[in-house]
Amino acid sequence: MRIANRISRLGTETAFAVSAEAAAFAAQGNTVFPFHLGDLNMPTPSTVVDGSFKAIKDGKTGYNPSAGIPEIREALAANVTATHGVTYGWENVVMQPGGKPTIGKFLMALMNPGDEVLYPNPGFPIYESQIEFQGGVAVPYSYIEGPEGFTLDIEGIEASITDKTRLLIFNDLQNPMGVESPQGEHERLAALVRKHDLYVLADEAYFDMRYSGATRSFVEQPDMAERTVILYTFSKKFAMTGWRLGASIGPKEVVDVIAKINVNDESCPNHFIQYGALAGLEGDQSEVHAMIDTLKIRRDAATTILSSIDGVTCFLPESTFYLWPNVTEVMGRKGLNDYEDFRRSALHATGVSFCSRIHFGRPSPDEKSRYIRFAYSGIDTAQIEEGLTLFKDWCEA
Amino acid sequence: MRIANRISRLGTETAFAVSAEAAAFAAQGNTVFPFHLGDLNMPTPSTVVDGSFKAIKDGKTGYNPSAGIPEIREALAANVTATHGVTYGWENVVMQPGGKPTIGKFLMALMNPGDEVLYPNPGFPIYESQIEFQGGVAVPYSYIEGPEGFTLDIEGIEASITDKTRLLIFNDLQNPMGVESPQGEHERLAALVRKHDLYVLADEAYFDMRYSGATRSFVEQPDMAERTVILYTFSKKFAMTGWRLGASIGPKEVVDVIAKINVNDESCPNHFIQYGALAGLEGDQSEVHAMIDTLKIRRDAATTILSSIDGVTCFLPESTFYLWPNVTEVMGRKGLNDYEDFRRSALHATGVSFCSRIHFGRPSPDEKSRYIRFAYSGIDTAQIEEGLTLFKDWCEA
Repeated sequence: MRIANRISRLGTETAFAVSAEAAAFAAQGNTVFPFHLGDLNMPTPSTVVDGSFKAIKDGKTGYNPSAGIPEIREALAANVTATHGVTYGWENVVMQPGGKPTIGKFLMALMNPGDEVLYPNPGFPIYESQIEFQGGVAVPYSYIEGPEGFTLDIEGIEASITDKTRLLIFNDLQNPMGVESPQGEHERLAALVRKHDLYVLADEAYFDMRYSGATRSFVEQPDMAERTVILYTFSKKFAMTGWRLGASIGPKEVVDVIAKINVNDESCPNHFIQYGALAGLEGDQSEVHAMIDTLKIRRDAATTILSSIDGVTCFLPESTFYLWPNVTEVMGRKGLNDYEDFRRSALHATGVSFCSRIHFGRPSPDEKSRYIRFAYSGIDTAQIEEGLTLFKDWCEA
Repeated sequence: MRIANRISRLGTETAFAVSAEAAAFAAQGNTVFPFHLGDLNMPTPSTVVDGSFKAIKDGKTGYNPSAGIPEIREALAANVTATHGVTYGWENVVMQPGGKPTIGKFLMALMNPGDEVLYPNPGFPIYESQIEFQGGVAVPYSYIEGPEGFTLDIEGIEASITDKTRLLIFNDLQNPMGVESPQGEHERLAALVRKHDLYVLADEAYFDMRYSGATRSFVEQPDMAERTVILYTFSKKFAMTGWRLGASIGPKEVVDVIAKINVNDESCPNHFIQYGALAGLEGDQSEVHAMIDTLKIRRDAATTILSSIDGVTCFLPESTFYLWPNVTEVMGRKGLNDYEDFRRSALHATGVSFCSRIHFGRPSPDEKSRYIRFAYSGIDTAQIEEGLTLFKDWCEA
């Protein structure tokens, strides 16, 4: 068949190949320690399950509005108002079949072909793919490693801005790095957004996945709420990755456009799952809190071992469920300078499976440090300790 | 905010405004007879409900492959192989969050900007919207009313083909007209597709909604399977409109591209609903058959009254759940020559709510006959009889 030209610009999540290799290795009878998955091996809270099943029994199985049921738009607006220091109403919320759809629809609604879009790299690979697929110019920015952790490369962002720059994608509580920007970085970034009249996608997929303190949304900065679309998802907080429910939250003008895109793309989100998610938002939060407690124990176990490896630096993030150790020295010492060689050697020697820098956007030719990503969301603490001890021994051998 | 230029080309389903007006009229204390909805007021079969709930309990709540779980791809391929006279395998099936997503993704995968796409008008309004939104040229074709019913305007299609024509959208078992093409029309259409090297979207949303005989798929025609993507949906057959599950079925080459679009747009379909749908496909079909029996009784009741109205012609379709009466004479007699005037007058005088020609694509200036659409999927037989008797009296007054 004659495939359309635009498909040549469409990227993917290359991390799926890592999953496939791990599964193949396990199928040969090997133990695999799955650190490659950004999925949760925990059940969805019973509030959500029970609420969904009740809604099916109540006949919530037909079409619902393209923007979602009014009750959850209202509840989500109230929830975000309470946590973000900005007043949102139901008209600022349009439901989506997952968190990811907001990325493509934000770009469809606000980017013209040829517009330049700033996006994090390393970052979620779909930013780069969707920008280019839809005819934009993907302009990467990065984070700089210092002795205390990573800082946003604000100077790099400013230097990249041209008269064609229109949009900025900001994924605070970042995948894959686990980085969170302090207040000062938010202020400096907001100043750039105002100065250059940009619009922002704030990918808040991990907003509620944190172990101490409180998350500060970028929309708290002056004038940012009117320039920002928030990517909200139920996937992580409620262990609902496979349920597919999220929302785009922002100014009514763009939310209305995104709702019209919903009409064209998939009609409406699932009906009864919205009632389940509503019950999850408004019901008892003990299962949600228990999940965070478990993740914190896993984080500590993983970070302790990784940071003890000779030649590895690994910071302790207060949010997300990712670790981003610097393995430059280990790769050099083992003579494995290709990321895929390193990953496969570790998998075959230890069963430890992880993603690396190359799964999170195209690396820049001048990158010198090497990083890999460990997700601790899909693996229990005992397995973390067993697997990472094997990995440590292998690294240090 | 600066909304992207492409949004000016995005259409919508204007029928939603009809629902809103009917709801407002009902909220004033009036009885509304809802014939405007293409939704089903019947419960989803217990096979699907139980299968989904079991899958939740079994932990099928995490991510699943972007193309869907292997089991349902396999089962759907077997199902379509059995009913379509063409051999499909799992690799020819990619799951979707509903039937509608296949429309946009088919065009994304196979249409370049400037390509001309033949589409039915009157027809599902999203064809026109998605073709134009994605930069194609929407070229309408129609059906011609004769004494025995409607026939496909093959001469009109042939006359519309230029050297830029690339794609054809064919919605046999048609919404809104309830028309089904006989074997001869399939043959002539397939000959045009071969001659002009076109690719086809076969929208089979109503494939299983039939009251006698068996549906003949367009892919049964020689060479058509390798040129056609089938839009499959669970929405109608299993009363699952609000669950959002469907599939794109076709040559592996384009199915792989559509799966890659899935990765970018929404990651994957809902996980546990696929197990529910699988149970629906493979389990006891008595609830599905009972639904068809009920719809047939409704169809007969509605057609009997509508075709008895002085000045109305209404054919009896063997498929879909739509009727498409010709009301040219009634509109003229009542001096209501504007579709919306006619619709609102009927609603306010009788409570009968329906869509009309203008909700199914842009009318051509040379159309002389006037049609309205009655859906009998969301209204019980007693209400059909009460409402349409009032409508008959109003038409004949």
